[in-house]
Amino acid sequence: MAAHGADTGGRVTITEIARQAGVSVPTVSRVVNGRSDVSPGTRARVEDLLRRHGYRKRPSSSASRAVLLDLVFNDLGSPWAVEIIRGVEEAAHTAGAGTVVSAIHGRSGDAREWTRNLRARASDGVILVTSAMNTLHEELQILGVPLVVVDPAGSPAVDVPTIGAANWSGGMAATEHLLALGHRRIGLIAGPSRLLCARARLDGYRAALEGSGITLDPSLIVPGDFRPEAGFAGCNALLDLPEPPTAVFAASDQMALGAIEALRGRGLRVPEDMSVVGFDDLPEVRWSAPPLTTVRQPLADMGKLAVRTVLRLAHGEQPDSPRVELGTDLVARASTAAPAARG
Amino acid sequence: MAAHGADTGGRVTITEIARQAGVSVPTVSRVVNGRSDVSPGTRARVEDLLRRHGYRKRPSSSASRAVLLDLVFNDLGSPWAVEIIRGVEEAAHTAGAGTVVSAIHGRSGDAREWTRNLRARASDGVILVTSAMNTLHEELQILGVPLVVVDPAGSPAVDVPTIGAANWSGGMAATEHLLALGHRRIGLIAGPSRLLCARARLDGYRAALEGSGITLDPSLIVPGDFRPEAGFAGCNALLDLPEPPTAVFAASDQMALGAIEALRGRGLRVPEDMSVVGFDDLPEVRWSAPPLTTVRQPLADMGKLAVRTVLRLAHGEQPDSPRVELGTDLVARASTAAPAARG
Repeated sequence: MAAHGADTGGRVTITEIARQAGVSVPTVSRVVNGRSDVSPGTRARVEDLLRRHGYRKRPSSSASRAVLLDLVFNDLGSPWAVEIIRGVEEAAHTAGAGTVVSAIHGRSGDAREWTRNLRARASDGVILVTSAMNTLHEELQILGVPLVVVDPAGSPAVDVPTIGAANWSGGMAATEHLLALGHRRIGLIAGPSRLLCARARLDGYRAALEGSGITLDPSLIVPGDFRPEAGFAGCNALLDLPEPPTAVFAASDQMALGAIEALRGRGLRVPEDMSVVGFDDLPEVRWSAPPLTTVRQPLADMGKLAVRTVLRLAHGEQPDSPRVELGTDLVARASTAAPAARG
Repeated sequence: MAAHGADTGGRVTITEIARQAGVSVPTVSRVVNGRSDVSPGTRARVEDLLRRHGYRKRPSSSASRAVLLDLVFNDLGSPWAVEIIRGVEEAAHTAGAGTVVSAIHGRSGDAREWTRNLRARASDGVILVTSAMNTLHEELQILGVPLVVVDPAGSPAVDVPTIGAANWSGGMAATEHLLALGHRRIGLIAGPSRLLCARARLDGYRAALEGSGITLDPSLIVPGDFRPEAGFAGCNALLDLPEPPTAVFAASDQMALGAIEALRGRGLRVPEDMSVVGFDDLPEVRWSAPPLTTVRQPLADMGKLAVRTVLRLAHGEQPDSPRVELGTDLVARASTAAPAARG
């Protein structure tokens, strides 16, 4: 979109906003474009009207301005950040757009400053990785900047298109793989229950056991937070059970790596003494010791689809579906095998 | 810098360029700003003059435009990409700048298109990760966009500030750590000899051996390309020697992971049967099995320094030094121990 005030994609014009606010059209334009030469009272009144009318800027026809997309992470330390960046950058490049990458972790007071910068560079669209940013969402609506959320961590905000992975099917595939190898006692190191994706993986695990006529043993489910430390602790907790499982499904690759390290620390071998399955298929688990059997999330593809969706919104079109899940695949490597015969 | 034609930082004005080219000042401005409404012959003539005069745009005083920095990778699949992005984003955010991340791998014909986009978004500075982009360097000079190179892979281009890590000291520290544990036959899985950083690590290894009065055995040095597959193959080659080493220094973490997998494949334990040291300290090697002893490159700090340097150039200042190396540290974890007594 142009940095100049432009009229709407069919709903309300800035002329109408100006009339209702009792200010001039250039003043509304200054508010829309984040300029500082507007009094705080006027800005608040105009922003309120813009929000109430769901004002959206019209895509620019100016060929000279480069298209910029914003890709925003909660935390760039996330292990799959680089995979999503790869997908977004590739699709954005194809569309002739630049990708501005930023993180907001540990800067909760910064949402306002961040939106000010977003305005100043006239961002054409925002791709948010994980949600928990409802205040940002509201500010973006005021700016009329289209928003797409990738892999929402919680309940997605209303009216925001989201792109995720088929977590339930993935949880089921991981568990069915272990069942097919002959495992009957299968531990789960779960993700945080406040995250939808973690709940879906847990339910997929349950559904697979149920499908095989196995009664769920709740002691085989231990909590985790997706990080390696939790996989380490969770696996040790499972090993301390009176009757430990013969296989573990860790709801993230990082927890699977922690579990493998816990087993190594006790002199147990993977997969001879215990099978381990992860979830994500991060590049590094191809070279874990042993290479990890895991559920592949198409992170780069999710990023690409997010670009196509946000550009579609920027052109005033609607996405095909407000909520898309891309398929997950089981990738069998060396960390799973049939259970050892017990003496 | 502003997207408007601005005059020079002390050398030549666009009025002078226009006079020499026999065109109007607005035409020169259009060339400088990458507009399409200029004939190819005129563009070539003006660009040639701009280059010959080393034309640089003056930093803008307009407060409304957001500062944008471009961070360019050869390949976003690089394992340390995300660490550098983290550092750059943090320092850019502190400076109120946005970070545009892009990759040019596999798009060698795209340099022209890339610079066109760079122009269109009026980038304030470019941070290039690894070099091999001399054509880009030339085009950036025409645009007057400051450039900083992080961790150059080859001979850095003249006049471009570069930021690297102390590779020679790191190679020496890794080798000295193994010597201190009592190892005498230490293998090296080297990096590509065309890369300066790989040559420096190899020389550090040699210097440490020499310092301990050990004669270099050339059969203990095997080639690699920094990737896990090379570590796997290189470690197997070392194990096939008539007298294998008791420890291996892999010149990248990824090669160290490949080496560990090669050892696991032969039923050998790390560190009991063989010690392994890496180089990089990627986040994931804290949870390799076993956690990897490695040489830490301050990748995020290198990114931060690159931002400060490129912003300094954008303000017409000079960097303190055209070539900076940040220190490396040995991080001792569980993959190294004293050699086993041989029977």
